[in-house]
Amino acid sequence: MQPVAEALPHPKRDEFDLSRVLHALSDPVRLQIVSSIANGGECSMGQIEVPVTKSTCTHHFKVLRDAGVLMQRQVGTARLNTLRREDLDARFPGLLDTVLRSVE
Amino acid sequence: MQPVAEALPHPKRDEFDLSRVLHALSDPVRLQIVSSIANGGECSMGQIEVPVTKSTCTHHFKVLRDAGVLMQRQVGTARLNTLRREDLDARFPGLLDTVLRSVE
Repeated sequence: MQPVAEALPHPKRDEFDLSRVLHALSDPVRLQIVSSIANGGECSMGQIEVPVTKSTCTHHFKVLRDAGVLMQRQVGTARLNTLRREDLDARFPGLLDTVLRSVE
Repeated sequence: MQPVAEALPHPKRDEFDLSRVLHALSDPVRLQIVSSIANGGECSMGQIEVPVTKSTCTHHFKVLRDAGVLMQRQVGTARLNTLRREDLDARFPGLLDTVLRSVE
């Protein structure tokens, strides 16, 4: 019997912290990840090209997930990522879009 | 004869880096500093109440200055601080205001 995959921990909307979200967005690789998902929609880590090792990449995704910037769901062996636009906009209106527009 | 005070180093507008600005804004004390200057206008470090030592506070101001978030000018023994609103808005339109609105 397959073990049931435990859901990955995500903060609730009212647990979001502005400093933590800004910190999550303050790294060039994490900005690139967020920008890629914003443009391309739900995707796995492997579909995003970033100049770091897989373990560093996994860490960056965890920082983004822990801050509430993205949602990860396990589908079989793949971990799919989407941005938490609605939750972020509810807490910090316009922040995500303003940052994404500033990404060069 | 009084020595001429050396001007403090500030990045030029086109040297601003989004990650660096977001990092500068990603600390609760630095957000409090930026919010105070936004509300009260030019002021010295001592006029802003933050729960940290003077040397930590000096460090926070330097991080903000190095990122281009604020401008410091020496007037006698006082170091006065203003936000670089125009420069920030030119590079990252709306970012500063969006962050300030999100500060609780």
